[in-house]
Amino acid sequence: MKYAVLGTGMVGHTLATRLHELGHEVRMGARVAANETAVAWAEARGARAGHGSFAEAAAWADRVIVAVNGAQIEAFAEALGNDAAAGKTVIDVTNPLDFSQGMPPILVPELSNTTSAGEALQARLSGARVVKTLNTMNHEVMVDPARVPGQSDAFLCGDDEVAKAEVREFLAELGWPEPIDMGPLSAARGLEGLMPFWLRMWGVVGSADFNYRIVRK
Amino acid sequence: MKYAVLGTGMVGHTLATRLHELGHEVRMGARVAANETAVAWAEARGARAGHGSFAEAAAWADRVIVAVNGAQIEAFAEALGNDAAAGKTVIDVTNPLDFSQGMPPILVPELSNTTSAGEALQARLSGARVVKTLNTMNHEVMVDPARVPGQSDAFLCGDDEVAKAEVREFLAELGWPEPIDMGPLSAARGLEGLMPFWLRMWGVVGSADFNYRIVRK
Repeated sequence: MKYAVLGTGMVGHTLATRLHELGHEVRMGARVAANETAVAWAEARGARAGHGSFAEAAAWADRVIVAVNGAQIEAFAEALGNDAAAGKTVIDVTNPLDFSQGMPPILVPELSNTTSAGEALQARLSGARVVKTLNTMNHEVMVDPARVPGQSDAFLCGDDEVAKAEVREFLAELGWPEPIDMGPLSAARGLEGLMPFWLRMWGVVGSADFNYRIVRK
Repeated sequence: MKYAVLGTGMVGHTLATRLHELGHEVRMGARVAANETAVAWAEARGARAGHGSFAEAAAWADRVIVAVNGAQIEAFAEALGNDAAAGKTVIDVTNPLDFSQGMPPILVPELSNTTSAGEALQARLSGARVVKTLNTMNHEVMVDPARVPGQSDAFLCGDDEVAKAEVREFLAELGWPEPIDMGPLSAARGLEGLMPFWLRMWGVVGSADFNYRIVRK
């Protein structure tokens, strides 16, 4: 499978590396094709690894992962362009966090509560099939669920069932065989809304190696 | 112990009844002392049960539970008055939900993200010691953790350690011996922020008998 991982931060780096380890072809996308982090990552990984602009990487890929700063999701979508992701499953792992008022960050008001970064992304990529997932946990846990003992939960939501089936396959490869389907993409309001709690729990636990488990009958 | 349970909805009713079953003296408080629901509850429970206005019930009590509509927390605090709760531990189980735009409700923007219903309550009851807890679960689970199989978590936060110790005792009586202390009252932003997720999970599970478990090493 050809994966474009758009974003060169820790989340993008971790996802790109794990997908490459799993044998996929992976291109790390950045605002500019010559992004130093993306170039260095591709050179270090060797065969099956590449880099490019957001649009180049996405246009090449079968599946597109969005791992940018969720607060900038609208500028990101504009830089990517609708054509590059048209018809593709777009896996959105972002959180719209505003750090400008100090720690812990708040949710960007214009991207939360009555909407979400996931919905804002879908609105600007009308040809894509956006699925929100994995934004509720640390990047290392995303690709290595065993960092958290016992069973814990991944979630997903989206408006396209075919795309959700693809994301379930992606999640199973990462170690999440039974993610909880939260329904339509508007459920991203709930998933992104967990982040203010998560950030405080991070301080309480003293480590990012924790996760949610929904306990039910 | 003398408990005032302020609010006559399902949450107030459930908490008042359970505390009364546990042998406490309980008065259900309402905006008006003659509130029919509060009067009926007190008559049905008999000895050790009573009712009164918000201020009457709170002034009588050792501990005050706030189980009103969190969206109206400011009007509630005004009706209660600062004097009635002065020096007392106030257990806030509210969520600031706005149902005016349909289901699922949103968080009241003025009471979320950069603040919380818990903080708004504390700001208006300067003499009280507000502790946020139990707002992250269904009212029946609050008083009967065994409705959810295995272990799941209750949370609390507040700015006064003595008050938090009292709330830990209260929680232990309800069946929550090891609640997770999330720190200062501002963590109520995270606890109340769980509600949009909870409401959607309610639909997914098809029952309110579920809860969070924080899985960690």
